[in-house]
Amino acid sequence: MGETKVHIHEFQEMMRRIYFHRDCERGIAGTYEWLTEEVRELGEALNANEKADLEGEFADVAAWLASLANITGIDLEKATLRKYDKKCPKCGHMPCECTL
Amino acid sequence: MGETKVHIHEFQEMMRRIYFHRDCERGIAGTYEWLTEEVRELGEALNANEKADLEGEFADVAAWLASLANITGIDLEKATLRKYDKKCPKCGHMPCECTL
Repeated sequence: MGETKVHIHEFQEMMRRIYFHRDCERGIAGTYEWLTEEVRELGEALNANEKADLEGEFADVAAWLASLANITGIDLEKATLRKYDKKCPKCGHMPCECTL
Repeated sequence: MGETKVHIHEFQEMMRRIYFHRDCERGIAGTYEWLTEEVRELGEALNANEKADLEGEFADVAAWLASLANITGIDLEKATLRKYDKKCPKCGHMPCECTL
């Protein structure tokens, strides 16, 4: 294994280099469908409770989310930091103090 | 806004500091359900094609994936790099050369 740390942006760019040609061919609707399929598989892995499978399924959901972001022109790092910058976006606190 | 770059691991830890108490109370099944709900909302935002909403929905899916990883003991950064380390895990190439 090479890197052991990666910025969200770097991960998204790595997904672009590996898959952008495929993601463009497939399009937004098809890529979104794959994301939902990967989320379904993550649910199955959670039920099976096999840690190795579970890790792979988390990786797949992250990868397909990055692919979808690439073909829709969203920077995931900017998006996450804009909404969750060391505080809950609803109550403004860390830890979150929202009333349930 | 503070930081403009964040490692996947740092983002996951930030989600832990904001939401771990809530995520633990809700549990794995309930947190997974929220993730699927956020993916559904992302699908709606893709159809509506409103960039500001879309960015927020991508952030929400990333945040709930991190919350779910926190309560299941998965390190998202390790998981993604273990599977997608500068190559497609199926064909071993960057760009991916898998036959469809």
